[in-house]
Amino acid sequence: MSRRIADVKRENEIGANVSLRGWVHRLRKQKEKTFIILRDERGDIIQAVCPSNLTKKLTIESSVEITGRLEKDDRAIEGGYELKVNKITIFNIAATDYPIGEYQSDEILLDYRHLTLRTRKFISIGKLRGSLLKYSRHWFDKEDWMEVTPPLLVKGAVEGGATLFEVKYFDNIAYLSQSSQLYLEAMIYSLGPVWTISPSFRAERSRTVRHLAEFTHLEAEIPWIGLPDLLSIQENLIYYIITMIKTYNQKELNFLSKDALKRLEKISPPFERISYGKAIDILRSLDCKIMDQDGKERNIEWGDDLSTESERELTKDRTNPIFITEYPLKIKPFYVKQNPSDENTGLAVDLLAPYGFGEISGGGIREDNLSVLKNKIRQSNLKIDDYLWYLDLRKYGSIPHGGFGLGIERFLRWILNFDDIKDVTLFPRTMSRILP
Amino acid sequence: MSRRIADVKRENEIGANVSLRGWVHRLRKQKEKTFIILRDERGDIIQAVCPSNLTKKLTIESSVEITGRLEKDDRAIEGGYELKVNKITIFNIAATDYPIGEYQSDEILLDYRHLTLRTRKFISIGKLRGSLLKYSRHWFDKEDWMEVTPPLLVKGAVEGGATLFEVKYFDNIAYLSQSSQLYLEAMIYSLGPVWTISPSFRAERSRTVRHLAEFTHLEAEIPWIGLPDLLSIQENLIYYIITMIKTYNQKELNFLSKDALKRLEKISPPFERISYGKAIDILRSLDCKIMDQDGKERNIEWGDDLSTESERELTKDRTNPIFITEYPLKIKPFYVKQNPSDENTGLAVDLLAPYGFGEISGGGIREDNLSVLKNKIRQSNLKIDDYLWYLDLRKYGSIPHGGFGLGIERFLRWILNFDDIKDVTLFPRTMSRILP
Repeated sequence: MSRRIADVKRENEIGANVSLRGWVHRLRKQKEKTFIILRDERGDIIQAVCPSNLTKKLTIESSVEITGRLEKDDRAIEGGYELKVNKITIFNIAATDYPIGEYQSDEILLDYRHLTLRTRKFISIGKLRGSLLKYSRHWFDKEDWMEVTPPLLVKGAVEGGATLFEVKYFDNIAYLSQSSQLYLEAMIYSLGPVWTISPSFRAERSRTVRHLAEFTHLEAEIPWIGLPDLLSIQENLIYYIITMIKTYNQKELNFLSKDALKRLEKISPPFERISYGKAIDILRSLDCKIMDQDGKERNIEWGDDLSTESERELTKDRTNPIFITEYPLKIKPFYVKQNPSDENTGLAVDLLAPYGFGEISGGGIREDNLSVLKNKIRQSNLKIDDYLWYLDLRKYGSIPHGGFGLGIERFLRWILNFDDIKDVTLFPRTMSRILP
Repeated sequence: MSRRIADVKRENEIGANVSLRGWVHRLRKQKEKTFIILRDERGDIIQAVCPSNLTKKLTIESSVEITGRLEKDDRAIEGGYELKVNKITIFNIAATDYPIGEYQSDEILLDYRHLTLRTRKFISIGKLRGSLLKYSRHWFDKEDWMEVTPPLLVKGAVEGGATLFEVKYFDNIAYLSQSSQLYLEAMIYSLGPVWTISPSFRAERSRTVRHLAEFTHLEAEIPWIGLPDLLSIQENLIYYIITMIKTYNQKELNFLSKDALKRLEKISPPFERISYGKAIDILRSLDCKIMDQDGKERNIEWGDDLSTESERELTKDRTNPIFITEYPLKIKPFYVKQNPSDENTGLAVDLLAPYGFGEISGGGIREDNLSVLKNKIRQSNLKIDDYLWYLDLRKYGSIPHGGFGLGIERFLRWILNFDDIKDVTLFPRTMSRILP
C-alpha cells in the first residue's frame, strides 16, 4: 500500500519496507546509483537512492511509485530519511521540456501556473489558504453564525460602476458581484448574523501588485449592532485566525517568510481605535503630503481619502492592527450610516494592518433610514430601479445593522509580507491574465 | 438585554422579565389588548399580548423590542409561551403595503424574494442550506482533504459551449466557470485530495424547474484513484451529510416536507452499483420508450443517454440511491477515461437519487493519456489552445485520478421532494430572473 511521506517519516518506521507515490522533484543520475528527491501529493519530499538500471528513462516530474527500505541518513534533506529503492513503478515519463526550473522569470511562472503550483512555495501557499478558510469558518461555526450563498450575478453596483464586469445574461445584461453585502443585508432579517466566503470581482484597470480582478471575499453582516460591537467582532475573528495559523501552520509560515511568525506573535487585542479626524491630525503632524487632482502636492486635510501612503505612515511603526473609524461621509459609499453625533462623518471603519501594510478589512454601520438612503443612491449617480429591493429592507421593519468584508488574499499578503498579491493566489486573474 | 426567542423558551424562565427584538409577524388588534406574533432574527416566533394603547401605530413587519413577563399559556403557538408586554420600543413602523401575505402568486414571491426570505418556509430553507454546507465541510475536514478556491473567470468550457456565459474581460472575452473540475485536477499534483464549494454557471435556455443559471457546486478531485474507491467516497460523504441533517435539522425537515425525514431514515449504504449496460437492459425490460431526434418514439437502446424519464424509471421503486457506471464514451464529455476493459465505455458514474428523482451527482475517472485526451478535445470541437495548460497535466507526470461534482440545490430539492429548484435557492437566477 502506498503511503504519504509525512506518515512514514517516523523513527519506528526505520528499517521497514515502504511504498511511496509521487513525482521526481530532483534527479541526479550516477553510473551505479541515482538520487531522487521524491515529492508526494501533499508536497512533502524525501531522498531516495535507486540502482541506476531502474531509472534509465526517468525525467524530472515523472510520476512513480518507489518501494524500498526506509533508512536514516543524517545527510539527507528534511529530517534525514532516505529510501533505499529496490522497485520503481512508472506511471508516466514526463516530457523533457518541463518549463519550471530553479531560475525562471515571473512571467513564465505565471504562464505555467498550473505547474508552478508544484513548487514548494505554492504548496505552502495552498496549505495556508486552506487553513485561512478553515479557521475562518471555525470561528463562525463556534459563534453560531449562519452561512449563506449570495448570488454572484447581479444588477446593481456596490462599489461604484467603474469596476463592474458585464455579463451577457440571456437577452439581458448582468454584472459580476463586487461584494455580497447588499444580499447579506437582506438575509439578517430572518437568519440573524450571516457570513459567506465567496468570490468578488473588480474590473480594476490598474496594474498594481495590490489588485486582483477576482478575489476571495469573506463578508459578514449582523442585525441590531453598533460600531463598537462591530469592531470587537472583527478583532475576535482576526485574532482567532491568527492564533490558529500560528499554531498549525508554522511550517508553511517559516518556509514562506522569515518574519511572519515573529510578527504574528506580537499581535494581541485590543486593537487601537482611532477616529479618522485624529488620523488626519497625526498625518498633518508628520507633514504628510498628498497629490491633488491637478497634480500639485499639498498637505493632507480633513476630507481627503487615506491613500496607500497615508495608511503606510499610520501603520509603519506599529506591531498591532488599528481601526480607523468615522470617515467623512463624502468619501464613503452610499450605504454608510451618518454619524448621529456628527453629520459630516459616517459610521464606517477600516482595519489597517501594521508594518506599513494598510487596509485589510472595511465595513461599518449601514444607513437604515429609507429617505436618507434614497437620496444617497441618487447622489451617487446609481439607478434607483436597481436598488428598489434593497430599499424595501428599510421600508419594512428597518433595523440598525452593520457588517464588514475581508479580502482573503490581501490578508494573506500581509501575513506573509509579500509584495505581489498574485503570489498568494493559485490562479490569479488580472487585467492582463485570464489563463491558465 | 435583548435575547433570542429560542433562548427564553425554557421552563425556568417562566415568570421572568424578558426583552425580545424582532418583527411583527402577525397582528390582531382588539379594543383593550393587541395580540402580536413576534418573529426574531432566527425566525423563531412567540405570542405576545400588549395593552392596545402601546400598539396604535404598529403594522405587520414593523421592527420592535418588546419587554414583559414570560408566561405559560397552552393555547399559544410554538410551545405555549406568551409574553405579557408592558413596554414596546419601536425601531421602524413598516409601510402598510407589505407585499407578502398568506396567499400570493409564485411570481410575487419571487419578485419580492428579499422579503419572502422572512417567511417560515424560507427561514427553514436558509437553515438547511447552512447545514448542508457546514456538514459537507465537516466531512472534508475530518478526512483531511484540502480546500481550494478555483477561479470562476475562465477561458475554456467544461460542459460544452452552449451553456457558457460570456464576460467582457477588459479588452478580451472570458467565460463564467461551468465547473471547477479542470482547475481541481491541476491542484491534486501538489495538494492531494482537494475540494471546493463554489458557484457554477450554466446559461440554460430551458425554462424548467430543474435548472438554475447559477448554482452551488460541491466538487472534489482525488489523485491515484480508481472507480470503486471514487464511489465509496461519494457514498461516505453523502451518507454523512444525511446523517447529520437528520440529526440536527429535524425541525426544518419536518416543517418543509412531511416525508423527508422518513425517507432519509431509509437510506443506508452500500448504494447499489449498476452498469449503464445493465440499466439499459432493465429499461428495455420495462418497455421504456424515448423520443428520437426526428420526434418518433422508439425503444431505448444501448448508446442512448439516460433521460430524466429513464432515470425516473430506474429509481422510482427504490429507497436508496444507486450508482450507474460505465456509460458509453460518446455520450460523456471529453475528459472521461476510456474503460480499459471495454473501449466503447468510459469510467464515468452518476449517482441517482431514489423515488424517481434521478441524478444528484456525477463524476468519474479522468482521461490521463495525453494523445487520447488531445484527440477527444478536437473531436468535441473545442479549441485546443484553451486547453494547453490542461494537457500539460498529462504531459508532465500524468497520474490516474478522478473526481465528482454535486449540485447543492439539486441535492436539497431531492431531500425535500420539492418540484421547483428555485424553492431551495435564496436568490434564484434563471433565464427570466436576475432580480432581486
